[in-house]
Amino acid sequence: MPGPAPYGPSERTTPTRARHRASYDRELVHAILDEGWVCHLGYIRDGAPVVLPTIYARVGERLYLHGSTGSRPLRETEESGTGLPVCVTVTHVDGVVLARSAFHHSVNYRSVVVHGTARSVLGEEERAAALDALVDQAVPGRSQDARPANAKELAATSVISVDLREVSAKVRSGGPNDEPGDLALPHWSGVLPVSTTRGTPQPAADLAPSVTVPAYLTQG
Amino acid sequence: MPGPAPYGPSERTTPTRARHRASYDRELVHAILDEGWVCHLGYIRDGAPVVLPTIYARVGERLYLHGSTGSRPLRETEESGTGLPVCVTVTHVDGVVLARSAFHHSVNYRSVVVHGTARSVLGEEERAAALDALVDQAVPGRSQDARPANAKELAATSVISVDLREVSAKVRSGGPNDEPGDLALPHWSGVLPVSTTRGTPQPAADLAPSVTVPAYLTQG
Repeated sequence: MPGPAPYGPSERTTPTRARHRASYDRELVHAILDEGWVCHLGYIRDGAPVVLPTIYARVGERLYLHGSTGSRPLRETEESGTGLPVCVTVTHVDGVVLARSAFHHSVNYRSVVVHGTARSVLGEEERAAALDALVDQAVPGRSQDARPANAKELAATSVISVDLREVSAKVRSGGPNDEPGDLALPHWSGVLPVSTTRGTPQPAADLAPSVTVPAYLTQG
Repeated sequence: MPGPAPYGPSERTTPTRARHRASYDRELVHAILDEGWVCHLGYIRDGAPVVLPTIYARVGERLYLHGSTGSRPLRETEESGTGLPVCVTVTHVDGVVLARSAFHHSVNYRSVVVHGTARSVLGEEERAAALDALVDQAVPGRSQDARPANAKELAATSVISVDLREVSAKVRSGGPNDEPGDLALPHWSGVLPVSTTRGTPQPAADLAPSVTVPAYLTQG
């Protein structure tokens, strides 16, 4: 069975460099997005770029972002009804690539860049579902084991959505690409793997000893 | 002895939310920058924001960035002599903060946001030093154990500099801040630590067995 259709490339999702590393494959994009939960959100404020880290969740072909970071500029543009042009980037660093030459040093990574328009999620039902998704993107299963937001908390939380339309992934993997003339040099070459890991859950100081660590924090 | 003077806050480095987490402390900013080596570079292209991951190095009060990602828009602005307005953000995620309520879930993190103007590093001496710094930021000590760039490679590498002037750090640490009324709920609360670790160096397939793993890859 063929996979889903890829994202259509656009002028700005076509890299000028290392084009062979770019992909518009929908399953690859989803996999990279689903492995992360913190993105870098870019927007323009007073004519200058702003890049802030924030949490996100993917639900189908839509990203939800915790909106506190982008809510002020978003509000400003929403008065005009146009939404806020944004770029959302998710990056996983997998390794440092050490070549014999300084020039061929590189990084193994997987990234997704989303160009789009951010809009405030105003509907209460969509907002509540998005908040669950944000919690579950960080810790799968957690949203069902926490007190849901009450009306006051829901009203105090801003959520932003960005549709996945203009999207590309970029992947670099494997060892160094040394010059043939450098292979006999005495310098070590290869890859220093880098990974993000989760440690032992640290209970809150005021947590009752009877509340044990849930399985979703220790598995997977 | 007092520490160095802090960065002066500006309108755009003053957060509208969680101001108590913002800092302009120079030593804190340097420490956060020095712990990383991959940043997210934001700039404006054709009126829209672009955010791309790239490597960086801090040398005193200047950041150097590998310029391949930003070189095209930078070249365009350099014809006008003004440089490219950028935002450079470095983020370390330290943990997922799980509260009894969905609303009080949070992230422990340390980030630095640099607003400034990117310029191409054109001087050969500064460019060569910046390239060494980029390699050493990822793997301290490595630049002295690799073949230096030759004239052709140097000419093919673009390096961008951004001065550290308009800079702020933001830090969230510690456990969840639950509502007093939620403390008796049966949900686990605390922090799930997140860290970035380096694994066992993987030699290149064509590395001679006589070349052993250097100490700078296995220590620290």
